Amino acid sequence: MTIQLYCFGESGNAYKAALALELSGLDWAPVYVDFFNGETRGEAFRKINPMGEVPVLVDGDVTLTQSGVMQMYVTEKTGKFGGSTPQDAREVLRWMFWDNHKMSSQAGMTRFLMSFLPEAKRPEGVIPFMQGRLKAAYATLNAHLAGRDWIVGDGPTNADLSCCGYLFYPEPFGFTRADWPEIDRWLSNIEGLSGWKHPYDLMPGSPADRA
Amino acid sequence: MTIQLYCFGESGNAYKAALALELSGLDWAPVYVDFFNGETRGEAFRKINPMGEVPVLVDGDVTLTQSGVMQMYVTEKTGKFGGSTPQDAREVLRWMFWDNHKMSSQAGMTRFLMSFLPEAKRPEGVIPFMQGRLKAAYATLNAHLAGRDWIVGDGPTNADLSCCGYLFYPEPFGFTRADWPEIDRWLSNIEGLSGWKHPYDLMPGSPADRA
Repeated sequence: MTIQLYCFGESGNAYKAALALELSGLDWAPVYVDFFNGETRGEAFRKINPMGEVPVLVDGDVTLTQSGVMQMYVTEKTGKFGGSTPQDAREVLRWMFWDNHKMSSQAGMTRFLMSFLPEAKRPEGVIPFMQGRLKAAYATLNAHLAGRDWIVGDGPTNADLSCCGYLFYPEPFGFTRADWPEIDRWLSNIEGLSGWKHPYDLMPGSPADRA
Repeated sequence: MTIQLYCFGESGNAYKAALALELSGLDWAPVYVDFFNGETRGEAFRKINPMGEVPVLVDGDVTLTQSGVMQMYVTEKTGKFGGSTPQDAREVLRWMFWDNHKMSSQAGMTRFLMSFLPEAKRPEGVIPFMQGRLKAAYATLNAHLAGRDWIVGDGPTNADLSCCGYLFYPEPFGFTRADWPEIDRWLSNIEGLSGWKHPYDLMPGSPADRA
């Protein structure tokens, strides 16, 4: 049975799940969610996910939200991306939690405020504050990647597929690859994986559709 | 061997791990980290955790950061709090990621800005913005808890021990138990668990020490 992923191109959190599904070789298909026209706030979508969030993964009678859970579900089904020892598995999970806690949560919000919300609606002071927090996160990740090709062990794991979630997008939110050489090199490693696709190629919907 | 948890009373993230350890019955002891005098920014602490975060759990040659990973480690060692079926285990993990992503990350920051940072240093506009985000998170949690005693299944899990992390603290950050009756009832359930302790009783250090 084909796994369905409710998603849209602009969602970095959806990308994390889509990329894990795609690179794992599982049979999956995207289901487009029209986020920018309010679909996630509608009653039909709330029936799929009461939290109103994208992404949602549906695999037969299994329904999941939160990209980290989906990534671990891919690992459960395929044995891929979870780390090859118990120690590595904990380290993968650590970076997934760190990303959700310290990086993607802030990056997604900052990008939304800067690139998808009309300028008149942007709350004063929030963007520079968030960018300060994000700079600390990029510095942590950049330092960790020095001398490493992957965040954990010697191949791609959910740690990489989580932390890269927002970093391929072209819309400005204060992240410039050239400023962080170790992150830049690591992102190139991910781009070099067989089957890798940019978020706007992997999932339906992009700012170009609304231009 | 006694598990060591580097922590301090004011850290809701440390509380999540401390509470899981305490309620599990594992042998553990807190190691006080003098966060407010800069200990986490010092070289000695960076050797324990290059990310500079609290909490850190040390169990023999296992060193962990991120409270979610520690909670799952407690589950790994004791079989407790992880959910009793594969489906529940995923649901527990979903709420742990949700909490890290949408609630604790914002609650911890807002409480820090409002209660631990001198008023003159508070960034303009950030607190009301964060409180708006938090209100949406409380609404999601409150709605989920209607008709339920616990977030997942019929007993306490890491989902509860994660989501409650900041909600027992007295310092203002925009959360009032009386405003959210389902959350209030659920927090009383947690307080009623055998061995439950308030963060300032479970871990060393509190604002009273600095008064």
